[in-house]
Amino acid sequence: MIYDLIIIGAGPAGITAGIYAMRQRLNALLITENFGGQMNKKAIAVGNYPGFNEISGAELIEKFQSHLKQTGIKIEQSKVNKVEKKGDVFLVFVEGGQSFESKTVVVASGADPRPLEVAGEKEFLGKGVSYCPLCDGPLFKNKIVAIIGSGNSAFETAIFLSNIVSKIYILEYGPQVKAFIDNQEIVKKTGKAETIVNVALKEIQGDNFVKSIIYQDKETKKEKRLNVDGVFVEIGYLPATSFVKDLVDFSERDEILTDPNNSQTKTPGLFAAGDVNVGKYKQIITACAEGATAALSAFEYLKKQK
Amino acid sequence: MIYDLIIIGAGPAGITAGIYAMRQRLNALLITENFGGQMNKKAIAVGNYPGFNEISGAELIEKFQSHLKQTGIKIEQSKVNKVEKKGDVFLVFVEGGQSFESKTVVVASGADPRPLEVAGEKEFLGKGVSYCPLCDGPLFKNKIVAIIGSGNSAFETAIFLSNIVSKIYILEYGPQVKAFIDNQEIVKKTGKAETIVNVALKEIQGDNFVKSIIYQDKETKKEKRLNVDGVFVEIGYLPATSFVKDLVDFSERDEILTDPNNSQTKTPGLFAAGDVNVGKYKQIITACAEGATAALSAFEYLKKQK
Repeated sequence: MIYDLIIIGAGPAGITAGIYAMRQRLNALLITENFGGQMNKKAIAVGNYPGFNEISGAELIEKFQSHLKQTGIKIEQSKVNKVEKKGDVFLVFVEGGQSFESKTVVVASGADPRPLEVAGEKEFLGKGVSYCPLCDGPLFKNKIVAIIGSGNSAFETAIFLSNIVSKIYILEYGPQVKAFIDNQEIVKKTGKAETIVNVALKEIQGDNFVKSIIYQDKETKKEKRLNVDGVFVEIGYLPATSFVKDLVDFSERDEILTDPNNSQTKTPGLFAAGDVNVGKYKQIITACAEGATAALSAFEYLKKQK
Repeated sequence: MIYDLIIIGAGPAGITAGIYAMRQRLNALLITENFGGQMNKKAIAVGNYPGFNEISGAELIEKFQSHLKQTGIKIEQSKVNKVEKKGDVFLVFVEGGQSFESKTVVVASGADPRPLEVAGEKEFLGKGVSYCPLCDGPLFKNKIVAIIGSGNSAFETAIFLSNIVSKIYILEYGPQVKAFIDNQEIVKKTGKAETIVNVALKEIQGDNFVKSIIYQDKETKKEKRLNVDGVFVEIGYLPATSFVKDLVDFSERDEILTDPNNSQTKTPGLFAAGDVNVGKYKQIITACAEGATAALSAFEYLKKQK
């Protein structure tokens, strides 16, 4: 069977694409490893998705997921390894070798945390180094932690951890903090966080567990040490695009280039929505809108093929 | 006082812009005549706003409005007559002559129903001719009505009216129906609707109240009459932009031209979001995303001005 549409991923973009596809009565398949995407890593409540004054990431995922499942869309729980195009048909290969055919594809596979690539990072992964504050935060009760990065994710992590840990260093490579102002204000009020800019991290050290980090102060060029028990990495994301790399073009940040009017990539019939694409503001609401746009564009593409 | 941002309108786009502006701690003012925008005219439940399986337009407005008000944003209930730019400052004039000053403006004033411009339309307005099925639908119990247009609004109107009226004609000017397929299917199931394409409406006739419509069949060129008690006009919208027309460029559909990456119009500091702009898919979720994008872009613009 050749599907009308295969959606890859079930974060806000993939879920909304699924809702719109089913309302258009497309014969659609959604392939995903899990539900919620980046929302799963939301350490604090979501306050900027219109309609919910304040809701936890987990609750919002549940509502999205319930909405999606109510449409009756077919779901394949698997990891996509490769997408190819043969003539007018896309072949989507999943782990284990099985493949699915479709006339259109929406890539909504989101992004993975970007690694630091410093000495000690891999060695201490799970031994003090974490990419998931929500998962690992509770292990650091009354401990000292460093958060690497100063964007919204970093500050939201700080807000979440401030109820658990005794002290937080927020370390930014550049000369300025990047997070939204509301997040900065809340972190300040916790009284537990110290922000240091111009930090070039050199190494994570320890024995069985992280004990300290070494960094260079980029202004003074001096090397410094901070004693910490944990390191949370929040320096952005790597779009999850390896399975589709021959079919799309990339931005300098490895995001899939799309036309913002219709979420179309350079390959006809292939769309990309959410954190995986070049869209500037990586918000839940913008990811949803891109998912809707991608599904409606796929529908129009299919009509023209007939 | 000079505001950081004035938002004009409180539909999905304006409300989301307000939520984002307040999270960025902008000194913001929202000017609107009412809340909800097009959602107020939603005759049937909303099923494609992620997070709510099915919710009435009125309920969704209430949730959006409560979310907005919780941010503490200042609200001026008024109609905007004119926006001017003097140097770096925008002047926003409201009915009665009062004016407000701001460094940036987000236009989210939505759109008004597009009139038919046929004989009898103005004469029978409120006497059988309606632009608001939700307001006027209940007056047509067991009557025969015509819906002019075949887009989603037209079909949603048909779905709503099918519980009230005895018979519905859906009249489309072009050769093909335009609504989403799910809406077409539901209308078909009601068993009350007859769709006629290639209809060039000529006149609405009656005495105290609408009695019939005259149209030309564009294929046969023959003039025909349909006996109807009501006419619901659903042929699209006219963006509400008169107050800002000297500061922006327009599409051929009178929508404000914006850069889809940041909702920026041709005037620096002036943004447009939602049904008022050129965005292709006029959905609640896309309007929200544009509102968020406009507010975040306004914030960045303000930072650069400092």
